[in-house]
Amino acid sequence: MASSDQAYMARALQLAHKGSYSTHPNPRVGCVVVRDGQIVGEGWHVRAGEPHAEVHALRQAGELARGATAYVTLEPCSHHGRTPPCADALVAAGVARVVAAMQDPNPQVAGRGLARLAEAGIEVASGVLEAEARALNAGFIKRMEQGLPFVRVKLAMSLDGRTAMASGESQWITGPAARSAVQRLRARASVVLTGADTVLMDDARLTVRADELGLDPELTALAVSRPPLRVLVDGSLRVPATAPFFQAGAALVATAQADREAYPGHELLALPGADGHVDLRRLLEELAGRGVNEVLVEAGPRLAGAFARAGLVDEYQIFIAAKFLGSSARPLLDWPLTRMAEAQELSIVEMRAVGDDWRVIAIPRATA
Amino acid sequence: MASSDQAYMARALQLAHKGSYSTHPNPRVGCVVVRDGQIVGEGWHVRAGEPHAEVHALRQAGELARGATAYVTLEPCSHHGRTPPCADALVAAGVARVVAAMQDPNPQVAGRGLARLAEAGIEVASGVLEAEARALNAGFIKRMEQGLPFVRVKLAMSLDGRTAMASGESQWITGPAARSAVQRLRARASVVLTGADTVLMDDARLTVRADELGLDPELTALAVSRPPLRVLVDGSLRVPATAPFFQAGAALVATAQADREAYPGHELLALPGADGHVDLRRLLEELAGRGVNEVLVEAGPRLAGAFARAGLVDEYQIFIAAKFLGSSARPLLDWPLTRMAEAQELSIVEMRAVGDDWRVIAIPRATA
Repeated sequence: MASSDQAYMARALQLAHKGSYSTHPNPRVGCVVVRDGQIVGEGWHVRAGEPHAEVHALRQAGELARGATAYVTLEPCSHHGRTPPCADALVAAGVARVVAAMQDPNPQVAGRGLARLAEAGIEVASGVLEAEARALNAGFIKRMEQGLPFVRVKLAMSLDGRTAMASGESQWITGPAARSAVQRLRARASVVLTGADTVLMDDARLTVRADELGLDPELTALAVSRPPLRVLVDGSLRVPATAPFFQAGAALVATAQADREAYPGHELLALPGADGHVDLRRLLEELAGRGVNEVLVEAGPRLAGAFARAGLVDEYQIFIAAKFLGSSARPLLDWPLTRMAEAQELSIVEMRAVGDDWRVIAIPRATA
Repeated sequence: MASSDQAYMARALQLAHKGSYSTHPNPRVGCVVVRDGQIVGEGWHVRAGEPHAEVHALRQAGELARGATAYVTLEPCSHHGRTPPCADALVAAGVARVVAAMQDPNPQVAGRGLARLAEAGIEVASGVLEAEARALNAGFIKRMEQGLPFVRVKLAMSLDGRTAMASGESQWITGPAARSAVQRLRARASVVLTGADTVLMDDARLTVRADELGLDPELTALAVSRPPLRVLVDGSLRVPATAPFFQAGAALVATAQADREAYPGHELLALPGADGHVDLRRLLEELAGRGVNEVLVEAGPRLAGAFARAGLVDEYQIFIAAKFLGSSARPLLDWPLTRMAEAQELSIVEMRAVGDDWRVIAIPRATA
């Protein structure tokens, strides 16, 4: 049975979710202040550089914060970043108890926030709805713990696992609801990453379009104000500077060519790997170093297959159109396996209708 | 809002479902007799040659049937078959009202059963939960209306739409719950149809195994007492008489070879079509002529693809294992399409977890 601690934390998580499209590189955080069984203050972190969730909630609670319990989806910070430490603000407000969903994986915090509160005589607890809190910030946590962003690969296929006809003929095979879901995946990512095949064949721009997000005006404005960085993986620089992709704003181009001129207005990053390809792991490390929490890969079978083969994928989101494209059509992933034992085992965590299409969320399973 | 007519018909349909594994070639039928808001008799058709649902229900109701309402999932029969007409039994029992879910598509009945009841002064109604009733007997109805059985194609694939490695290496890629669901699909079919590839490569026997059905003892006993006819499509008679398939009971072999000797104990049917293949449409017509309502196709990509290409499939049941087999692995269906406009549009009617696997039920959509 859910305790009242869980109920208040669920509300704090709900608030934290509102930051899904705007907090990066910071984590999404929500806070609820409860006094005598009443919520007296609520807050969520909106954008990096702006106040943290606790500050908003304490401001709303005002004097009622004294003796209250604060529920926070992430351990309050103890260090001076762009804003003063939240632990200090909670102490100053006189709260009696702080419940965190999880410890901060940021090595600059890592339990020190809770310790500071305890030293000040505040009762502290951690681990309430921790799994939900971790899922909310899987990218931030992975970056802190492993120095890599969370990599989500979006694929769209027919029910027989095909993405386009052999001729290359392709078009949106999924409907408007699926397209809108993909727009939200882009908006929540720090980086949308694609390859030369996609940009050349589909004239893809990989932008976030306000009218297709399907979000309320507040979240739409936030999403559009902080668009993801668009990254093009183009080992041999096949995409011309005149491509629509480059007209849609500043982008980062990762290439295997060390000595080429940059595209005007765009950053060029030389990360040569094997066989003239870009070193994808080094690219992800570089992106994590720049504060990138979540990468959405929207690419053709070759680049998506390269991420899969390299074991760099954390989650697949596969949009399935209710049709068969037939056995000559292009595969989902270029990933030539020869033995059953090499098959990539997955855990399917969700399968549900999205308009006329279906979405499968699957996570690679480590094989022994 | 559901009327009480709908509630009683829902119960009658529930009873009819108990005949799923045993009534063929007859339809599945259930009956409920209601007097003063109380169910006083229930029955369902168990096996061809045995009493119809109405007879069981009327027997249970006894004298209470007089003045009662009978709910039947299919129009009561008016002709003498292996049992006397049910319309006469209802008149004799003195029921006041008969509600049918649907008219009988059998040209020997086709409204005459209800007419006979009306002539006897009984109030009649039809069309209550008709869609559910039609779904229950889709095979019987298609056979009556079109002279063809309902064709259900079972496929098992990885999430990237593959069925086996390129080498032919294959094994059950789905788990025990999916296998059990396939056993029930076999048991409810009048015919389980396969091809030489499957029988040769997998030593498939395509039998119904009591211990894998996952049914209660009553239904298990019924299913096993009336197993489906096993049909092998083998255009050039590649399968030797020593194959395990032939050891598991009498089978029907459809071939394109006109002048070959029969397998001892098995029937050989020559139906030569184009290019040395079996004429699948003629095979289905032949099966319908023998009273076959539902055919389950469990075959490899070549034969399943041939049914798909010929437009002979009514329903796909696709079991999806949570793994990727990669882009060299074998396709779901051998069906080389070249243009997007040729793609087979489907309606996905169900997608749900079956143990660790998932099942998609999809119906081909007619394209203009």
